[in-house]
Amino acid sequence: MDSLEENINEDLIKERAQCNFDVSELTYFLDDGKENTEQRRKFEKIVFSFKELKDPVSEEYLSHKEKYENAIRKSSLLVKITKENFQDMESEMTEKLGINGILARVAQAVIKDVSPFLLHFGMFVPTIVGQGDAEQLSYWLPRALDMNIIGAYVQTELGHGTYVRGLETTATYDPETEEFVLNSPTLTSYKWWPGGLGCTANHCIVTAQLYTKEQCHGVHNFVVQIRDEETHIPRMGVRVGEIGPKMGFNTADNGFLEFQNYRVPRKAMLMKNAKVLKDGTYVKPTNEKLTYGTMVYVRVSLVSEVALHLAKAATIAIRYSAVRRQSKLKLDEPELQILDYTTQQHKLFICIATSYALDMAGKWLWKTYKKVSRDIGHGKTDSLPELHALACCLKAISTADAAACIEKCRLACGGHGYMSSSNLPLLYGLITATCTYEGDNTVLLLQTASGHYRNSISRSNYIYITAWEAAAVLLCRHPASPTPISIDTAPESSLLMRASPHTEITCERVSFWSQTESIKYNTTLLLSNTRTLLPWYLVKAWDQKENAKDVKTTVSYLHHAYNNRYEKWDNTTENIIIGLQIVAAGKISSSVKSLNKRVEKGLAYEDAWNLTSVQLTRAAEAHCRAVLVSTYWAETQRRTATLSSSLRVVLQTLAELYVVYWALETVGDLLQLLNSTLGAYDGRVYERLMAEALKSPLNAEPVNRTFDTHLKPLMQGKL
Amino acid sequence: MDSLEENINEDLIKERAQCNFDVSELTYFLDDGKENTEQRRKFEKIVFSFKELKDPVSEEYLSHKEKYENAIRKSSLLVKITKENFQDMESEMTEKLGINGILARVAQAVIKDVSPFLLHFGMFVPTIVGQGDAEQLSYWLPRALDMNIIGAYVQTELGHGTYVRGLETTATYDPETEEFVLNSPTLTSYKWWPGGLGCTANHCIVTAQLYTKEQCHGVHNFVVQIRDEETHIPRMGVRVGEIGPKMGFNTADNGFLEFQNYRVPRKAMLMKNAKVLKDGTYVKPTNEKLTYGTMVYVRVSLVSEVALHLAKAATIAIRYSAVRRQSKLKLDEPELQILDYTTQQHKLFICIATSYALDMAGKWLWKTYKKVSRDIGHGKTDSLPELHALACCLKAISTADAAACIEKCRLACGGHGYMSSSNLPLLYGLITATCTYEGDNTVLLLQTASGHYRNSISRSNYIYITAWEAAAVLLCRHPASPTPISIDTAPESSLLMRASPHTEITCERVSFWSQTESIKYNTTLLLSNTRTLLPWYLVKAWDQKENAKDVKTTVSYLHHAYNNRYEKWDNTTENIIIGLQIVAAGKISSSVKSLNKRVEKGLAYEDAWNLTSVQLTRAAEAHCRAVLVSTYWAETQRRTATLSSSLRVVLQTLAELYVVYWALETVGDLLQLLNSTLGAYDGRVYERLMAEALKSPLNAEPVNRTFDTHLKPLMQGKL
Repeated sequence: MDSLEENINEDLIKERAQCNFDVSELTYFLDDGKENTEQRRKFEKIVFSFKELKDPVSEEYLSHKEKYENAIRKSSLLVKITKENFQDMESEMTEKLGINGILARVAQAVIKDVSPFLLHFGMFVPTIVGQGDAEQLSYWLPRALDMNIIGAYVQTELGHGTYVRGLETTATYDPETEEFVLNSPTLTSYKWWPGGLGCTANHCIVTAQLYTKEQCHGVHNFVVQIRDEETHIPRMGVRVGEIGPKMGFNTADNGFLEFQNYRVPRKAMLMKNAKVLKDGTYVKPTNEKLTYGTMVYVRVSLVSEVALHLAKAATIAIRYSAVRRQSKLKLDEPELQILDYTTQQHKLFICIATSYALDMAGKWLWKTYKKVSRDIGHGKTDSLPELHALACCLKAISTADAAACIEKCRLACGGHGYMSSSNLPLLYGLITATCTYEGDNTVLLLQTASGHYRNSISRSNYIYITAWEAAAVLLCRHPASPTPISIDTAPESSLLMRASPHTEITCERVSFWSQTESIKYNTTLLLSNTRTLLPWYLVKAWDQKENAKDVKTTVSYLHHAYNNRYEKWDNTTENIIIGLQIVAAGKISSSVKSLNKRVEKGLAYEDAWNLTSVQLTRAAEAHCRAVLVSTYWAETQRRTATLSSSLRVVLQTLAELYVVYWALETVGDLLQLLNSTLGAYDGRVYERLMAEALKSPLNAEPVNRTFDTHLKPLMQGKL
Repeated sequence: MDSLEENINEDLIKERAQCNFDVSELTYFLDDGKENTEQRRKFEKIVFSFKELKDPVSEEYLSHKEKYENAIRKSSLLVKITKENFQDMESEMTEKLGINGILARVAQAVIKDVSPFLLHFGMFVPTIVGQGDAEQLSYWLPRALDMNIIGAYVQTELGHGTYVRGLETTATYDPETEEFVLNSPTLTSYKWWPGGLGCTANHCIVTAQLYTKEQCHGVHNFVVQIRDEETHIPRMGVRVGEIGPKMGFNTADNGFLEFQNYRVPRKAMLMKNAKVLKDGTYVKPTNEKLTYGTMVYVRVSLVSEVALHLAKAATIAIRYSAVRRQSKLKLDEPELQILDYTTQQHKLFICIATSYALDMAGKWLWKTYKKVSRDIGHGKTDSLPELHALACCLKAISTADAAACIEKCRLACGGHGYMSSSNLPLLYGLITATCTYEGDNTVLLLQTASGHYRNSISRSNYIYITAWEAAAVLLCRHPASPTPISIDTAPESSLLMRASPHTEITCERVSFWSQTESIKYNTTLLLSNTRTLLPWYLVKAWDQKENAKDVKTTVSYLHHAYNNRYEKWDNTTENIIIGLQIVAAGKISSSVKSLNKRVEKGLAYEDAWNLTSVQLTRAAEAHCRAVLVSTYWAETQRRTATLSSSLRVVLQTLAELYVVYWALETVGDLLQLLNSTLGAYDGRVYERLMAEALKSPLNAEPVNRTFDTHLKPLMQGKL
């Protein structure tokens, strides 16, 4: 096998020789600095020197059970190696690329599928950090980071995913013993899906409905020990197991969990925000701004993660396409490298560009996330709603794009891409899962998860949410008599919204973003009894567009869309981006119009919304696409400025390809909204036709000169 | 578990109670008659009574090896049961639904993944039937049908798939011993992929380059014994094994095969057509019209097969969506069945419609295939080119659609759809494979497989191919001096094309279809040195359009597209279908124009073609879509005429949904080509703008009445 590693295929050597930039420069760029590359390589060298981490037989040959056992063996060794050799673990976890840092990348190379420890570091630890009080932090965190305990994040149930508020697991406080009693009252309440829960974790974060003094306070999180630390046997009252084979993640021992009168101490409840006192008194959080932090954190991380996996798939497909030769283009030449077929380039180059787009957007989003987190530490929470909405939106589009592109890469490798050893089926299996987990993409696009927000509210009673969400919650809680809400325009294009005193909600300075992102929050308004609420918000949002030009948010493009009608198509990248933004604005506007029309015709608001939801999804997609395209382009301009010109040109060309590709993919929309006089977004078809007609050179003069030279003589018989 | 089977979910009972047609009537319709349904059920009842055919543990838990062993155990038992209980096997194989008949459907239910015997019945037997002479048939067929021997179809090699002509395995005739000597000269020549080859088959059809008297006569098929019938040990000179885990088909033991001076008797070569005499003389076939019969047969069968799998996926997703409740639409109502969300309906209803579209198109295609086969038996071969092209086109689009729809169904089931026990990952794994096997879809759309045709030619020297293909082959074989070709218009819209005497090609009555399907054959013209050839054919094809109205082919729509400009959009189904046909015609026409433009600018024809290939693929897709939509609609009209009106309405509505869905999906194209004054396919933008403008009511009178009532008084200061 040594010869296999030493002899590089001649076609690949030839292709690489044609590269006209310094590959190291690109590597450092992707790693965010030479020092990161060096640290990664040093660590990789150590890790890959352990023969025990190499599978003698590919994992796919093993049984389901053997796969798990092998993953545990390798993951444990990897943790040991990491502890002994990687000094930078904490900063890796918190300051760099989230779960997509060096550690995670090396782990992926070693484990191939996923580590059963993935969610210990990915969700268990971050939730404790985000939601534990000081005492809980000092108790759990060191043990968790040292892996003295292994945790899972246990939220989803057999019958409950999207609608978190509908979770059925209960945690009832017993002041006698100062304990919570956990129960799974129904089959549908069994916890189902959490990674690492099946056989690995001995602790977990459990999301359950909190009952105390006979009142339900909505879902809260609890740190629960489920297995004996010494014997690993499930504790009495706990039934835990693995849910079985899946399309991917087969080494992740996703599990189920049932509680029967299972008691945990009072301090099992994570109490950074809400609290339950010894006597059972429920204490609302005083100023909690980031209770859904774990979910935002994971969604933010996902953008970079799928970018990385797509980059792998694209690398595999491109290399194979350089090596594979098939069919002759010209008779006197050898069979062509399949990469030389335009159809193959059309499939694969956009996959490369997409991986860069998602990588840049992911890093930008991560930076935003870090900044917002820091701001929150200083009591500044203005940007949270935009971050939250951005994370939803970019999660949905990036996972869908990455999955589609990976599958495109696989199919572009023909039959051989179907083999497990190509690694492409595994990459697809991993990434297609991201389309449904952490928020189903359709749901995210529509934000039907009003339950989630209502639930957050009922848990914390004071949370930084959007004005729309708040309104929905209020109205939901007082369905018979909608709470009056006063909404004033505050400076800096934000809205100040105060709930009336008798509600539990206070929502200040809801940023402009959330309102203009109106289509994403329609569902929260399903609960409203006031049919006029939505139009009011929309009109307000559109009214605010003038202010948007001074605000650097991801919807400031609405300003262009509103004020600057598209005048001239000049084929520049910037121009195309504006086009895509206008498409998005037009779709937002037209879906709202459809919705209103249905309401005007007498449909219940909820039913009108449901009937409009396909259109709303398309509008949300168009918005996400506009955000992604413009972010990628802006980041490329900014980040490549200091690079060598040879590399800069390549990266900018790639970004241009991405923009043009999406313009062509949505050419129908562009035509409909930009070029076509018949499909203009304001529906003023005939006005536009006439306006266009009047631009005809024939109309530049009232009477064409041919009248004098030909027509008149003709008519007068004088020709 | 009994209770699980007896208690039906209440939501499902409720939904079923709402059905307003007789379900049995639909079942008989789908089974093509009550007697088929009854036979199927009788057979199912027998098969499912065997407890040994049920897996005690789901196959996904097993190791790769155990999966195979389990599949062999079950498949063998199933064959035994079939022999003893199913009397209709031969007619099943040949007269009914191809490999998609009762036997195959029951086998799928039992085996779940695929049977290692799949290609024994699916390709080994049909190839012997199609290509064996009488003696060979009587020798091999009874043994094969009785499964005294088990065969595989061994064509693809590690380095050769699409380009059959490039296969490297050799079969060299040795007149001394009257044997062929098989060899695998390189690594890339190893046979790779054939199903059932790895461990199961003891015989196989091997496709190899035939050498005799030091001349190569191109690829031919040989029946080769590879393992001892008694011990199953590979014979000397044969190295055979399994290629490893894949995304699906893991119970199919796809294999590799290497020959080293392996000798087989002369009569191993299938000699219905070409022959090698004892002394090594190569005898060309005298009148062979269907040498690529096996491939056409499999492609034809695939359309019905993917329809069936999609139907399964859609059934799973619809049932789950009726049972799964998630999120509330209205506060005072329970969580909604997810099927009640419009977004879910938008995802799933089109999947149902697509399964019907493919089922109807598949049955129609099968019927056509049977008819053409019968005609060939009577020496009538007119329809073969159209059948071949149709099989390519429908294979490509139906497999791509089915795979996309199955994945849509899976994702519509959220996280639970990711579990193997949902069966959706397995269905996707099976069907996505069809996008690359039996002709990669992109390749089929472009027909880049010129090698295939050339190869067929070199094998048989007399084959019914299209004029374009023939021209390409001729020019390819005489690159330096293109053979003069005379092409005359014959009656009935067909072209008579004769190669000059010194070539080996004779091609009569190439049907109109092939020429108008020009975009599919461009690649064969890559080999041409005469740049004017393509335009000539196209002009000819377009010139023939007038005759098309009398010819019932799948391109007769070009007649409309050419003669009847789209005048009025009236939203009827028929009208939309015509729209989609015009879109296809426009794309065909504009790709050809792009191609010509590039050639005119001085590009080599091959390079111009390559640069235009993305556009050509899109044109081919549009054509396929038009064929599928119109076939589905026409067959629905025809086949539902005798049904009860309640069922007929449902099936017609479904077909309408399909048509409208595709109109909306391609609305950009429709707008561009139909509605938009700016994107009309003739490019006469300004003329159209003016023409549209003149339709404005404002232009109906030369002077608007406001001139008298307002303007004139205003200007004259008299207002």
